[in-house]
Amino acid sequence: MTNLIEYEDASADVRAVYDDIMQTRNVDRVNNFWKAIAHHPPTLVCTWHTLKEIMAADGALDPLVKEMIYIAVSVTNGCDYCTASHTAAARRKGLSDAMLGELLAVIGMAHETNALARAWRVPLDD
Amino acid sequence: MTNLIEYEDASADVRAVYDDIMQTRNVDRVNNFWKAIAHHPPTLVCTWHTLKEIMAADGALDPLVKEMIYIAVSVTNGCDYCTASHTAAARRKGLSDAMLGELLAVIGMAHETNALARAWRVPLDD
Amino acid sequence: MTNLIEYEDASADVRAVYDDIMQTRNVDRVNNFWKAIAHHPPTLVCTWHTLKEIMAADGALDPLVKEMIYIAVSVTNGCDYCTASHTAAARRKGLSDAMLGELLAVIGMAHETNALARAWRVPLDD
Amino acid sequence: MTNLIEYEDASADVRAVYDDIMQTRNVDRVNNFWKAIAHHPPTLVCTWHTLKEIMAADGALDPLVKEMIYIAVSVTNGCDYCTASHTAAARRKGLSDAMLGELLAVIGMAHETNALARAWRVPLDD
Amino acid sequence: MTNLIEYEDASADVRAVYDDIMQTRNVDRVNNFWKAIAHHPPTLVCTWHTLKEIMAADGALDPLVKEMIYIAVSVTNGCDYCTASHTAAARRKGLSDAMLGELLAVIGMAHETNALARAWRVPLDD
Amino acid sequence: MTNLIEYEDASADVRAVYDDIMQTRNVDRVNNFWKAIAHHPPTLVCTWHTLKEIMAADGALDPLVKEMIYIAVSVTNGCDYCTASHTAAARRKGLSDAMLGELLAVIGMAHETNALARAWRVPLDD
Repeated sequence: MTNLIEYEDASADVRAVYDDIMQTRNVDRVNNFWKAIAHHPPTLVCTWHTLKEIMAADGALDPLVKEMIYIAVSVTNGCDYCTASHTAAARRKGLSDAMLGELLAVIGMAHETNALARAWRVPLDD
Repeated sequence: MTNLIEYEDASADVRAVYDDIMQTRNVDRVNNFWKAIAHHPPTLVCTWHTLKEIMAADGALDPLVKEMIYIAVSVTNGCDYCTASHTAAARRKGLSDAMLGELLAVIGMAHETNALARAWRVPLDD
Repeated sequence: MTNLIEYEDASADVRAVYDDIMQTRNVDRVNNFWKAIAHHPPTLVCTWHTLKEIMAADGALDPLVKEMIYIAVSVTNGCDYCTASHTAAARRKGLSDAMLGELLAVIGMAHETNALARAWRVPLDD
Repeated sequence: MTNLIEYEDASADVRAVYDDIMQTRNVDRVNNFWKAIAHHPPTLVCTWHTLKEIMAADGALDPLVKEMIYIAVSVTNGCDYCTASHTAAARRKGLSDAMLGELLAVIGMAHETNALARAWRVPLDD
Repeated sequence: MTNLIEYEDASADVRAVYDDIMQTRNVDRVNNFWKAIAHHPPTLVCTWHTLKEIMAADGALDPLVKEMIYIAVSVTNGCDYCTASHTAAARRKGLSDAMLGELLAVIGMAHETNALARAWRVPLDD
Repeated sequence: MTNLIEYEDASADVRAVYDDIMQTRNVDRVNNFWKAIAHHPPTLVCTWHTLKEIMAADGALDPLVKEMIYIAVSVTNGCDYCTASHTAAARRKGLSDAMLGELLAVIGMAHETNALARAWRVPLDD
């Protein structure tokens, strides 16, 4: 495990990002992800700026939909941390048990048909 | 490439699935995916039954959302056929250019943070 | 695409491996895979020696079974070249249409349950 | 971790699947996998029906061979749960230490040649 | 394939990024990657800013080393476009045939030992 | 977890490899990886011979660079054991905190652009 950079031990640059995360999300602490990548401040700055831009609430997609897409990618990539943290975020945005069950069912089925399409080397439809 | 089993060459069991696909989707032909996996009828039958059940329009998730989740998994698994066919399906269900752009942006960003979370071995949040 | 190192252009070290491949397999040419990795002779030598050892006919597993395992990994890794060449090898060792259909069905299903097990984060059984 | 749905807490639909699993396999309990996906009954029903059909003992492939294929995919996808449970199943069907060693050797070698074939972008053989 | 947004058809925002890419790299055209993601300007802007920052020549790692790391990830993820474009970039920065051969050998070997370590579920060393 | 084959319990063939590892690396014990794959001696022998050849210090690439490439592949494949052991090896060869931070930043960024290139299906540059 990586040790984490807490606010009180952070440089001014890192604190500025932590402050922006807390203010943007209206929370009083930042997740471990940010405290880990803060070991390399350019990664922290660039990743947060991109995430803030892409996950902004006023985009073309509903915020809950974006969390579900995030979960789908994270499960497929086998990233337990991201799966857990984005499932928690989706819950806060209204993901019900029924929606979660269906989301995971679609993910599972997509894996099967992805494998079958590759295995049978299916040519593209016209 | 796999050669495809066309309707006129198909067994009665396979034709029954093709008929159900066309009726359920209100189309007059089936995609190459089904014509390829028809080489193994149990796979055709089981996959179609599962897909019909999970992707049904009356589930907990909007049909367009399910197509976007399907795209997210297919891109991550590197399945070009599935990415192309589900993007076409999503287009028919209303996916705009702006939504597609944002969908792919979320997918790209999720890959980056998945990799960073694994690379830094971030511990789960409390 | 990588250009290939043909026998007549190969160094003595590379020719020795090509000769051993042809003799071991009782064929009169080597596959493109070997002609590509011959650009780095230590890779050619080590890979061939390992493959010859592990895929030897007198092991604990039947040679056709080993080819099917190879196909399963290659499909999962999305390697079209390896999928095609090991499917051809399996065909020569007796893989029937029915066996191929069932093999790909198992591969597809394993992908689905792998994804579901990860997505639901199923704890190990006692 | 997902909490598990035990028999006594399950709905009639879920119990019917649990009963069929126990009867088909001649065991007196079901694995955690089924108790987890039971949170979404359609997934439980579809997955079990497909698995029962594809893994049936009277197919074109030997049941132990199918378990080895399952292990190959599960290792490649990084699914620890599935690797462990199908290794246990393969052991019950006769997988010896020597067979397991050779199986994992083939899996490891396939990963290497898959990567080399992709890295060198080897063209398909005629 | 995605159609590409050429300079003459691009908005002012997109042109500004294209200009910065050409100036930073001292070239007179931009790669197709940028012309594709320009369909979603926030992705173009964020990705370029991050790439410019991380791949800058004055970092802790040599620019050629960074290109080799990029190739290693791209081969592993099966991204042909990225493998090809970063191999070309590495060539311009001095990658010799011998270095390329050894790079791909390390990548291939890492895949094998990754698979073996997972398959045998090796516990961490003290 | 796999139980490990310690030196005192190993066969002569296995001990010979352990001895060669310790002598080549100038250490007095071997890592768990070798003690696990020793369950299948041909895998142990072939893997060690290949690794010794490819990772040799007198190759075309610097030993530390090879360790960084190994880390990049291991993170991408999600192999925690290999990531940890090669990070430790890289540390012993001079990897600084700044280099590690930049290495992981490049890995993360490569994942993002790999996904974007695949998602947008970017055609190869001329």
